[in-house]
Amino acid sequence: MKPTVVFWYEFASTYSYLTVMRIDDEASRAGVEIEWRPFLLGPIFMSQGWTTSPFNVYPAKGRYMVRDIVRIAAERGLPFTMPETFPINGLKAARLAIAADRVGAQGAFSRAVFNAQFTRGLDASDDGVLTTCLTSCGLDADAMWARSNEDDVKAALRRNTEQAQANGLFGAPSFTTEDGELFWGDDRLDQALRWAIMEKNSAVASKA
Amino acid sequence: MKPTVVFWYEFASTYSYLTVMRIDDEASRAGVEIEWRPFLLGPIFMSQGWTTSPFNVYPAKGRYMVRDIVRIAAERGLPFTMPETFPINGLKAARLAIAADRVGAQGAFSRAVFNAQFTRGLDASDDGVLTTCLTSCGLDADAMWARSNEDDVKAALRRNTEQAQANGLFGAPSFTTEDGELFWGDDRLDQALRWAIMEKNSAVASKA
Repeated sequence: MKPTVVFWYEFASTYSYLTVMRIDDEASRAGVEIEWRPFLLGPIFMSQGWTTSPFNVYPAKGRYMVRDIVRIAAERGLPFTMPETFPINGLKAARLAIAADRVGAQGAFSRAVFNAQFTRGLDASDDGVLTTCLTSCGLDADAMWARSNEDDVKAALRRNTEQAQANGLFGAPSFTTEDGELFWGDDRLDQALRWAIMEKNSAVASKA
Repeated sequence: MKPTVVFWYEFASTYSYLTVMRIDDEASRAGVEIEWRPFLLGPIFMSQGWTTSPFNVYPAKGRYMVRDIVRIAAERGLPFTMPETFPINGLKAARLAIAADRVGAQGAFSRAVFNAQFTRGLDASDDGVLTTCLTSCGLDADAMWARSNEDDVKAALRRNTEQAQANGLFGAPSFTTEDGELFWGDDRLDQALRWAIMEKNSAVASKA
């Protein structure tokens, strides 16, 4: 059985975009299973006294972040546009992603949303933009919107966010391994995958 | 002529330790000249409303940072001990580093201080610890202490810190290239070195 890494992402997060666009390839190369888990950073930031993204709270950090993403995207041949509205409220996108997961389309839908937002600069909290993302993945938009408003989907997102905070997450993207290690940032993806494989091997060895 | 990268470091910074222990090797492999430039993060944090390290202001981030460093240090075969006092006031160490630069020993002295602090867990704001670091590099401790209290040394450190802030620095380690690009974090060292080489090559090409 392949080791599993949980991929914690937030739809408003620029660095999550970098990871969303490569995690499936990297994980399959490494032989690791990825469990996509959307959550909301808003409540976590609020509990640290921030009412918006730290990139807005600390402008020098915000300016740097944009330049950092531009350079990394260029190295990877990835388009990048900073959307006018930042950060968006990722609530609807996250609920739709959970609804899409029930039909096996969470990754495809999430990629479509990140693409709309950070390739074309669209507002991914907008219903029309999200509907286009749903249909572009071949999903039944009306059914998905209805599903996303059901109580169990709402509860699942709340649980993801509570679990994120309980696991010590404070930013996105983050990765957790089966033995509870936390890795933060697109630049820790490779290390998280290596860790998951190492951990699996040593678990197997200790049983042998 | 080799391209130059300015290496901005703060003696209290755990991630600066990671870079201090490898930057000379990495840079010489890449064919890049490094200019070591100590500065103080305290005044920069103060202007963001923090009276201590963000790792103390945000405990989840602080706990993560220690675990992150432990894992990276282990991968690199580097010892790591989190000192009891964190962050230290790096003022004396930074002035001594500038004084040591006048006799070509800035790198050696800085490595000794980071080693004392993060390998042995000592308090690198302590005069006795710093004196031992000076003598371990073959420096005349009394002369260095006297030199470190002269006005031009004090002014040089103030200038470094002002320049850091003017350049948009908000953390350490940071790297700047001759064309003014800013890179933040030990995990951006390789990218900064690549950038410096690319930039130099394109400057040469545009003159040819």
